[in-house]
Amino acid sequence: MSRWEPDARGRLAQAAMELYRERGYEQTTVAQIAERAGVTERTFFRHFADKREVLFDGGQALQEHMVAAVEAAPPSESPLDLLAAALDAAAGQFAEMPPEFPRRRQEVVAAHPALQERELIKLARLSAALREALRHRGVAEPAAGLTAETGVAVFRVAFERWAAGEAGPDLAVVLRDSLAELRALSR
Amino acid sequence: MSRWEPDARGRLAQAAMELYRERGYEQTTVAQIAERAGVTERTFFRHFADKREVLFDGGQALQEHMVAAVEAAPPSESPLDLLAAALDAAAGQFAEMPPEFPRRRQEVVAAHPALQERELIKLARLSAALREALRHRGVAEPAAGLTAETGVAVFRVAFERWAAGEAGPDLAVVLRDSLAELRALSR
Repeated sequence: MSRWEPDARGRLAQAAMELYRERGYEQTTVAQIAERAGVTERTFFRHFADKREVLFDGGQALQEHMVAAVEAAPPSESPLDLLAAALDAAAGQFAEMPPEFPRRRQEVVAAHPALQERELIKLARLSAALREALRHRGVAEPAAGLTAETGVAVFRVAFERWAAGEAGPDLAVVLRDSLAELRALSR
Repeated sequence: MSRWEPDARGRLAQAAMELYRERGYEQTTVAQIAERAGVTERTFFRHFADKREVLFDGGQALQEHMVAAVEAAPPSESPLDLLAAALDAAAGQFAEMPPEFPRRRQEVVAAHPALQERELIKLARLSAALREALRHRGVAEPAAGLTAETGVAVFRVAFERWAAGEAGPDLAVVLRDSLAELRALSR
């Protein structure tokens, strides 16, 4: 795994997260983020619609990778095995990210109700996309809905623990452990 | 079980739901809701803060009943048994409601992104309250978080199916079946 070498987009994301922590999210401007990253404002807007979207960058890619993993899994897989494949794909998205990045991001989101709402909407969309992918794989209702909602539940709990540094450095392992814990609870 | 005999609050809720369907949510005014229910606007505002809150009335009571059920369950219960008790308590909240009420409500909420956001926030709060109640009952993390999130997932999927008339008339049975289905999936 190569070291995370930020390009302009990565530098902008890092600069934004630093400034959100130092000055607060509300007080930080796009001009300040661009300056800290050593690029122009125009470059910022080539990568992000606004300062909020820096925090939600990657959400669409995350969803696409999880859906693709469900679609690509072997035909014999059970609904929860399809979910496990999706969670593995999710972990891949964060594999090269510096660990302090998601923790700071979670802190900023947790401190602003409007950002929490945005987060909830993104997760609801992720659940709907996973449900649709599971249906395409022949999973009937209510199993498809339950598996998708459960998948997002596992992702939320595991990601929160991983970002807080409470559960080891490897998100893939934390996700697998959380799904195993849920299976154990259900026995 | 007695027939649902609406008082002023119940009549206002029914009138609101009829008008939201007939004229659309945006176009309906509090004055129209009060007139249809045969009460004054002042009476409306004694029961609801605004026309949006008619749709979310009972959310706080639902949360309190589910938390109380977790607190009151026998000491030996497993996390998923505590969850089952909470889901039974949730069903009790809807036992005397006319079945078309939740279906119409779901339709109105589904048609308005701002109402969907409000719904997601309420469900996130419910999850946080259940998680706290489970911790108080000695459930460790991540089991408490996983069980609470899973509980809300089961509630969402079951409530949606029940409100759409896809899963029989008794919400308690639909909730229990959904939890059983999740357990079966996890095997």
